[in-house]
Amino acid sequence: MTIRVVAKNYVKPEKVQDFLGLCKSLVEVSLKDEGCIDYGLYQELENSGVLTFLEEWKDEKSLDQHLNSSHFKEIFPLLSEYLEKETEVNVYRKTL
Amino acid sequence: MTIRVVAKNYVKPEKVQDFLGLCKSLVEVSLKDEGCIDYGLYQELENSGVLTFLEEWKDEKSLDQHLNSSHFKEIFPLLSEYLEKETEVNVYRKTL
Repeated sequence: MTIRVVAKNYVKPEKVQDFLGLCKSLVEVSLKDEGCIDYGLYQELENSGVLTFLEEWKDEKSLDQHLNSSHFKEIFPLLSEYLEKETEVNVYRKTL
Repeated sequence: MTIRVVAKNYVKPEKVQDFLGLCKSLVEVSLKDEGCIDYGLYQELENSGVLTFLEEWKDEKSLDQHLNSSHFKEIFPLLSEYLEKETEVNVYRKTL
């Protein structure tokens, strides 16, 4: 059973381009992580400051490995300075 | 460019099974909607009362058609009586 992650970021309007620049390498490297099925950054149609990672992982173990990877641990803390508040993360399993 | 929808529901704990029962037919029929690429209901690992639709549509037109379909218009209003607050809906376009 795969795991789906929704990680929602409220980015300061003047920092969206900087945020995207940092996320580019995170997305590229994470797509190569073991057990990564899908990983992308998405922008809200009605609020361009809402930028959300939508991810799919083979299982919880592969998500844990991603969260403990050097690329995640290096880049994720840097993102916080561009945010208006803390990232909202939800991890899901398919029900229907 | 496809469109991704995240529609997050906070379901009253005692109403989760009723909510799932209503959503089952909505998911089954919506998967057959024109332009529907993916449509499922997902349960949060750490909070079983958070039940979120994760959807992918061919374009905004196909999403609009879904929102105006008889099955959506019939079932969606019925879900609200099982919720603790209004559904949070975000519509996204891929950026990275």
